[in-house]
Amino acid sequence: MDKHTRQFDKELWELKKRLLLMASIAEKMIDQTITELAKRDESVAQQVTTQEQELNRLQIEIDEVAMTLLATHQPVASDLRFIFAAAKINGELERIGDLAINITENVHTLLQSPALKPLIDIPRMAAIAREMVNKAVDALVKEDVLLAQTVIMTDDQVDDLRDQIMRELLTYMMSDPRTVERALALILIARHLERIADHATNIAEDVIYMCQGRDVRHPKLERSEEK
Amino acid sequence: MDKHTRQFDKELWELKKRLLLMASIAEKMIDQTITELAKRDESVAQQVTTQEQELNRLQIEIDEVAMTLLATHQPVASDLRFIFAAAKINGELERIGDLAINITENVHTLLQSPALKPLIDIPRMAAIAREMVNKAVDALVKEDVLLAQTVIMTDDQVDDLRDQIMRELLTYMMSDPRTVERALALILIARHLERIADHATNIAEDVIYMCQGRDVRHPKLERSEEK
Repeated sequence: MDKHTRQFDKELWELKKRLLLMASIAEKMIDQTITELAKRDESVAQQVTTQEQELNRLQIEIDEVAMTLLATHQPVASDLRFIFAAAKINGELERIGDLAINITENVHTLLQSPALKPLIDIPRMAAIAREMVNKAVDALVKEDVLLAQTVIMTDDQVDDLRDQIMRELLTYMMSDPRTVERALALILIARHLERIADHATNIAEDVIYMCQGRDVRHPKLERSEEK
Repeated sequence: MDKHTRQFDKELWELKKRLLLMASIAEKMIDQTITELAKRDESVAQQVTTQEQELNRLQIEIDEVAMTLLATHQPVASDLRFIFAAAKINGELERIGDLAINITENVHTLLQSPALKPLIDIPRMAAIAREMVNKAVDALVKEDVLLAQTVIMTDDQVDDLRDQIMRELLTYMMSDPRTVERALALILIARHLERIADHATNIAEDVIYMCQGRDVRHPKLERSEEK
């Protein structure tokens, strides 16, 4: 292995390490926001903000490493596809951090009043979304198409939970106006979690595209439709 | 200019053309969803769906053109930065299409019942968001930093309108339970429009990063914080 190749492999590994780090921070943020909500403890909100800044910094670093790799090593084939995917995926992970911040804002609203109801579906939804993020980035680093496919299949569970949460909370709001503000905050949290799951799905789709050169991002788009 | 350079310029122009086309479709979709809502006419919903598929196809094409450009021409400096930005921005535009679809779903809910109130702020918010998308992609193609900055500055107006809409609709929901479902649908539409404006802001930030090599995506991130 020549010096140039060794340097390239080292930088590629740096890219993977940073993506894994971003994913682990994003997962921790999801956990923390839901702990904050479930335990009614706002003391973690500051940690979530600090971690979001860490995600922002890692996003910039990944862009810089990816551009340097493209400019100095001019990779082709699977290495090029990996770097291309990394440049898209860092944005997905950074957005997950933004959504965790949005959740803490809604939690802040909720903690101003007594709990509306015991929480079951939202923590479940959060656990699924967190697991999807974990698996999606694992699939990226291992270039594991099957694992990426399980992430995509899980998204339906998240959508079902969201519908269930929406229906239940609408009932609350319609039967008692005093619940409106809290129910709306919970609905928005469910929406943020749904979007986190969407970002994990996007990552999984990018992984499959990267591995197979086949686009699964728009399964309904038939080849025959294409120009 | 040698043949290789001419071919490269031609393909780069293809990339720009497709991004402009994606933006014009996304803008049209925003208009159509709001027309559907304002005129209570669901006949445009099918057009929005067709256009979303067109955006999906263009996203795939842009990825393919970008990867081919990277692999065959191994661009550096500003050309590399442009292609890198294009690969991120096509995703932003595709998401705007998804959000337009989400809006039509909420409009569908709204059209099942009489109008809750005359709409003023939501069409205004849509017009601003649409203009932001237009200017952001214009700034990309013209590599115009000042134009990109005006997009970023406009985002605060959108957030203010969203807060105003939320406050007003919360009042409706709390005073009359019969308005809950419609008010919630309008709140979700305002949220979707806010996210469209966020995507336009992301594009504008990518443009500035591309032109200046300076990251404005996280202005609060001080250099001293960086490793």
